[in-house]
Amino acid sequence: MTTTSSPVTDAAATVTKATALLRRRATTLGQHSPLFYDTPLAMESASGVHLTDVNGTVYLDGYNNVPHVGHCHPHVTGAVYDQLQRLNIHTRYLNDRVLDYAERLLATFDQPLERLFLTNSGSEANELALRVARQHTGNTGVLVSDFNYHGNTTSVAELTTGLTVREPLGAYVRTITAPDLDHVDGSEDAVLAEALAAVDAAITSLQDHGHGVSALLFDPLFSTEGLPRLPRRYIEGVAARVRAAGGLVISDEVQSGFGRVGTHMWGHQMHGLTPDLVVLGKPMGNGHPMGGVVTTAALLEEFGSQNTYFNTFAGNPVSAAAGLAVLEVIESEGLVQTAHACGQLMRRELTRLAGSYDFLGGAKGSGMFHGLEFLNPETGEPAPELAKQIVEGMVARQVLISRIGKFNSMLKIRPPMPFGTEHAEILLDRLTACLGAV
Amino acid sequence: MTTTSSPVTDAAATVTKATALLRRRATTLGQHSPLFYDTPLAMESASGVHLTDVNGTVYLDGYNNVPHVGHCHPHVTGAVYDQLQRLNIHTRYLNDRVLDYAERLLATFDQPLERLFLTNSGSEANELALRVARQHTGNTGVLVSDFNYHGNTTSVAELTTGLTVREPLGAYVRTITAPDLDHVDGSEDAVLAEALAAVDAAITSLQDHGHGVSALLFDPLFSTEGLPRLPRRYIEGVAARVRAAGGLVISDEVQSGFGRVGTHMWGHQMHGLTPDLVVLGKPMGNGHPMGGVVTTAALLEEFGSQNTYFNTFAGNPVSAAAGLAVLEVIESEGLVQTAHACGQLMRRELTRLAGSYDFLGGAKGSGMFHGLEFLNPETGEPAPELAKQIVEGMVARQVLISRIGKFNSMLKIRPPMPFGTEHAEILLDRLTACLGAV
Repeated sequence: MTTTSSPVTDAAATVTKATALLRRRATTLGQHSPLFYDTPLAMESASGVHLTDVNGTVYLDGYNNVPHVGHCHPHVTGAVYDQLQRLNIHTRYLNDRVLDYAERLLATFDQPLERLFLTNSGSEANELALRVARQHTGNTGVLVSDFNYHGNTTSVAELTTGLTVREPLGAYVRTITAPDLDHVDGSEDAVLAEALAAVDAAITSLQDHGHGVSALLFDPLFSTEGLPRLPRRYIEGVAARVRAAGGLVISDEVQSGFGRVGTHMWGHQMHGLTPDLVVLGKPMGNGHPMGGVVTTAALLEEFGSQNTYFNTFAGNPVSAAAGLAVLEVIESEGLVQTAHACGQLMRRELTRLAGSYDFLGGAKGSGMFHGLEFLNPETGEPAPELAKQIVEGMVARQVLISRIGKFNSMLKIRPPMPFGTEHAEILLDRLTACLGAV
Repeated sequence: MTTTSSPVTDAAATVTKATALLRRRATTLGQHSPLFYDTPLAMESASGVHLTDVNGTVYLDGYNNVPHVGHCHPHVTGAVYDQLQRLNIHTRYLNDRVLDYAERLLATFDQPLERLFLTNSGSEANELALRVARQHTGNTGVLVSDFNYHGNTTSVAELTTGLTVREPLGAYVRTITAPDLDHVDGSEDAVLAEALAAVDAAITSLQDHGHGVSALLFDPLFSTEGLPRLPRRYIEGVAARVRAAGGLVISDEVQSGFGRVGTHMWGHQMHGLTPDLVVLGKPMGNGHPMGGVVTTAALLEEFGSQNTYFNTFAGNPVSAAAGLAVLEVIESEGLVQTAHACGQLMRRELTRLAGSYDFLGGAKGSGMFHGLEFLNPETGEPAPELAKQIVEGMVARQVLISRIGKFNSMLKIRPPMPFGTEHAEILLDRLTACLGAV
């Protein structure tokens, strides 16, 4: 917005396409519907790892994980359209499409994870996983990290710590801190022992208050938390304690799933852990609304025998076609390998940059999910404003990234999976320019 | 399954396409994933008000409300494909598609319902509406009907009474009985007074137990309950009492919305009531997973200022294109008028049939949602087995319907909206044949 001496004639000029959209948005979706960037971008089209705004400006996408195999991938859009024209009906009729998808998806999991509930989102899937865990264990207590985000429904809001919600933390919730070896003193063994002692204390507290332990719910990357460098065997240790207390382990793979970590298809596989329930979301349908819970035959049948669980949209053949096409593209284009190769380049170069500026902390992450910490060089405190300045500088240089972490002081670089080394080089060049301009 | 003396040679013959699908389903989605009919149907394609199974048998669809404007409607599938190829991204960027949709949708509501939250399903929308109501009122108590279904998430499971869930009814839930003038004795005024006295008692109980009243959540058709013939001004009376107790009124229009009632676009408009929150679901995207909550500017902004509510998939331009295309078809094809005209024929003929057989109770419903009750002619008790026999008989005659109501003793006839009088005549002919064969 500009202030001018001739409001009538200048008004038309300042009403750009974006501000017109902002005004319409305020009177339909409201003033608080979240937007990115100081000057929100009005997008018009997208393809692969690029987005084009209403003014024709092309952006390199270093942020979006929903268009997992690339924006508007023709194999996915074609599969969806083929099925849309043929049949789009719920799972109370038999149809082969959902079974083709379920079989292909389940084949990517380790035993005994061999059954699938389909939902429409990660929120619905986390809700369902918590219902399964509570019913199976007879307990209500939940362990989550102290800076988590798992969705927008009531049960999940009551255990959210990484985003503003008005609901107080549920009485049945205990938080644990994922230890970051980059930020705590002491040997790896000592850090691990202290972190696991805190888990023991949280479990004891849940038991002492009569909640018991129904589940650990965690993101294998701890991405909202800021990609901490965990002590080896930390997750295994937490899971063992939760299971010893009678609880189940829920791995929320909304961020880490479908090969994003580069070394494995699923984040929990990095930790050498087989969870009891795995939650799927965002990347599953390349933008088509889908989520799911993968679990054991025993847990699925137990829940199914005691609840009529039906989800109207989930598992329809159009959603199944989208999901199947995503798996096909991941395989045919070798996208997990791309994530690994590009991730190694990214991590190496981000680490190099981190060593070159006194206001940078460490580089974090791997595969197609990276972070870069900003610090006040004098105090060593997190520097969210500086990170924000870089994010805005990158947008001005036509590269989309965002921020993450407990202090919002870390760059969040999480592009679509076809983001290759050629794209990484562009991103790194522009990032270097931004850092040089600080 | 058949038992034969030559299992090896006959096995191949009995493994029809459907049984092969059933077997694959059991080892992926599990044994309890709900299916329709004694012999589940394996569907292959659909168009308008017809479905075709894998053997080429064509069924008239008297049941499905998700393909609201007709199966695979080309205006909807075309709009979705156009947008899929262009852009499919979340609402943290500006995009005109979601605003086009929001404006068009909101124009169908009465003031002061002028703001929209978008979700991916009716379950998510009911979750959100309850969060808004609880936060606004500071109360937790909820009034629902004593045979309701509003979704599959925890908060909604805790107030579900019309379907098997293992969660006990929440301590903060009170149920009320929607009175059916076809089934209770006494004058309409007396029935109304008694029903409203029960509402007063439920509210007092919530207050006495410290829950207070956050919301009434109801389906304007009371469709799961069996389409009761309510006393005039019943809903108005309940709503007035809830509001006097400080609660909000949530109209769940997943069943009644988008013109299905034939006389109005929204079910609550039949009752002369403007709710505080309206929940949208199933028919919204003709099968594309979408839901929403329409509310006042004040409630939306209050919630938005106190919670970062973001829903990844909801409001993406593809979903918006689907929703917009549905509204366009409803208008261009005059589907509300079709529902009204066909509904009058259906109700008249179902009423005539009801008078012709001693095992039939009353005809219920209007527009594109009808019921027909089955009774034991000797005892007058509900006859669910007889209703089931008719449903199966109709499937054998290639017409899809189902059952509904507290005793599952009522036919549920709820076709896609383009179901015209020519289709109604076929359905009624085959129904007459089924009834004659009892």
